[in-house]
Amino acid sequence: MPRLCKPSVNVPENVVTMEDTLKFAEKMHAGKEQLPLALKLIQNTGVQTRHIVQDIDTTLRHPGFEERNKIYERESKKRCPEVIEKALANAGVTEREIDAIIYVSCTGFLMPSLTAWLINDMGFRSDTRQIPIAQLGCAAGAAAINRAHDFCVAHPGSNVLVVACELCSLCYQPDDDDVGSLLSDGLFGDAVAAAVVRGSGGTGISLERNAAYLIPNTEDWISYAVRSTGFHFQLDRRVPGTMEPLAPVLRDLVTANGWDVANLDYYIIHAGGPRILDDLSKHLGVDRTMFRHSWATLTQYGNIASAVVLDALRRLFEEDMPIAGATGVIAGFGPGITAEMSLGRWAVDGHRETDRTRKIAPAS
Amino acid sequence: MPRLCKPSVNVPENVVTMEDTLKFAEKMHAGKEQLPLALKLIQNTGVQTRHIVQDIDTTLRHPGFEERNKIYERESKKRCPEVIEKALANAGVTEREIDAIIYVSCTGFLMPSLTAWLINDMGFRSDTRQIPIAQLGCAAGAAAINRAHDFCVAHPGSNVLVVACELCSLCYQPDDDDVGSLLSDGLFGDAVAAAVVRGSGGTGISLERNAAYLIPNTEDWISYAVRSTGFHFQLDRRVPGTMEPLAPVLRDLVTANGWDVANLDYYIIHAGGPRILDDLSKHLGVDRTMFRHSWATLTQYGNIASAVVLDALRRLFEEDMPIAGATGVIAGFGPGITAEMSLGRWAVDGHRETDRTRKIAPAS
Repeated sequence: MPRLCKPSVNVPENVVTMEDTLKFAEKMHAGKEQLPLALKLIQNTGVQTRHIVQDIDTTLRHPGFEERNKIYERESKKRCPEVIEKALANAGVTEREIDAIIYVSCTGFLMPSLTAWLINDMGFRSDTRQIPIAQLGCAAGAAAINRAHDFCVAHPGSNVLVVACELCSLCYQPDDDDVGSLLSDGLFGDAVAAAVVRGSGGTGISLERNAAYLIPNTEDWISYAVRSTGFHFQLDRRVPGTMEPLAPVLRDLVTANGWDVANLDYYIIHAGGPRILDDLSKHLGVDRTMFRHSWATLTQYGNIASAVVLDALRRLFEEDMPIAGATGVIAGFGPGITAEMSLGRWAVDGHRETDRTRKIAPAS
Repeated sequence: MPRLCKPSVNVPENVVTMEDTLKFAEKMHAGKEQLPLALKLIQNTGVQTRHIVQDIDTTLRHPGFEERNKIYERESKKRCPEVIEKALANAGVTEREIDAIIYVSCTGFLMPSLTAWLINDMGFRSDTRQIPIAQLGCAAGAAAINRAHDFCVAHPGSNVLVVACELCSLCYQPDDDDVGSLLSDGLFGDAVAAAVVRGSGGTGISLERNAAYLIPNTEDWISYAVRSTGFHFQLDRRVPGTMEPLAPVLRDLVTANGWDVANLDYYIIHAGGPRILDDLSKHLGVDRTMFRHSWATLTQYGNIASAVVLDALRRLFEEDMPIAGATGVIAGFGPGITAEMSLGRWAVDGHRETDRTRKIAPAS
């Protein structure tokens, strides 16, 4: 079975603390009636630090959609190669052994996708498949893992590189002051993440089953307004409540795989916001500490969109590597409202895959 | 093996003839030095008629990116369902039997992708996978077929719906008058196409092998400039010459499958322009009439981007259905410069797949 190896993640050098965000909000909304709400929303995110590609003053100025998209191109070209090289090294494969690149990003739009430049610049083979996905938003990280899983099954022996490049700060819209915008101004951060799904071998998650779910009639709840000023993120106030309909879907999927959703060894969950994590753990009957890697991503990096699941998975690798056979789930949520879900079992390079369902070692 | 069933195609009701295009060019470029070149480029396309979603006068006015994208949303919602219903009927499957929707379009940008609306509005299952691809341009139709092929192999028994919605007239940029723009103003048309790849059964192409190829260091040759006015199509003058490096790639792929590229029974080739079709038939040593379905698409509809291969395939079904076992290729070309290729064999519902390599019946 295909194996998802250790992700590599890079966050930019410009750090914005919650204190900075509160200070800037006080300045931006000075004297306006939305100020108290903005401050409350920012505090409620629980996001302590975020990392962004430009300094905060430059970020807050909108230079126009064309210029923004050029910055996206420049910064993605500057930051992706190093992250990709580390992901390849983590998986023990070279550029020449990659058969497909799934590049997901909803914060800039390039045609052709960055995949063409990566292939040319980094020495991937000319017959590498390009699978760029721009329209699954925060769900795209998990979707990329699922499509990589499918590709490796369809093409035995192949390896797939997944890249999530989310420069959310380049979608900041200074003139938007609705509740969703006020919230997202304090929530989103920038990051680049990559991981390899190997057709065989490697240490990581042996991918067993994947699925998707669209919550009926919620397509307007998370969306972009596409304007001359670029993408405007629109968030409906009902979104934080979506874990209630999604929890049973996740439970049924896990049950169908012969496991118990309340007793998995690891949970890699999209950190859309604190309520998403709180509600899902409650509805699944799982202690909130089981989502600690997602909480850490949210607190330290903010919501880094499609890169969240890869960063939370990196933390699992680094902080409490499961033992062989440990079972778990990856779940990403995004516009649609779409959930992309993956069930897998920990596997160690050189060892036969096992179906033991022993518990994860306690966090150190 | 997965089978690509008969596509359904719809072109809009507003018809633009070559005479219309010449007349409008004379008006648009009146007194400017580029006029003779513009007229020559339009005549050289060989495109006799195109179909567009708005009348020509409305099309020539740019109402702004935001409004254009709203027109894209309105028109895609208006036109896709009927085409999809016919594609499902062609394949003998219902909405509830579809497991994934691959929606490709490079002429408008919706977040979430139209897939969410289609699932909600047309009654697809909530667990339908959404695979939206916006950044493979004209190559995306063949890429969608290839990813559908992969999905059906990875998930045995599943069916995948492919939709290509290309409203190229909504990318017309009145202020662009470089050679590439003058050419594309006379070349591109609008169309919506759809087809089902069945996991088993059905009449159509039994998909055997797929591949992709990126011509090294050509990523700037076909691209979008992303501006406040939307997507600006940029075409390098070297693009029409790209069949020379691509022909050997296609030949090698076919040879690796045990076939002879000069003696296939059908060729479904992206009709990027007349030189693409002329050159490829020459380099492959194939009579140009073997590309007749692509020529018909180009002449009657123009370059309809990712929908070309689906329309050319529809014509093959309608005009000279191959016999069981007939061998052939589908090839799409787009930005990157990327080629997406698929090799398959004609299969008839209810009959066992055959490996006869008898010739196609002559065109009537």
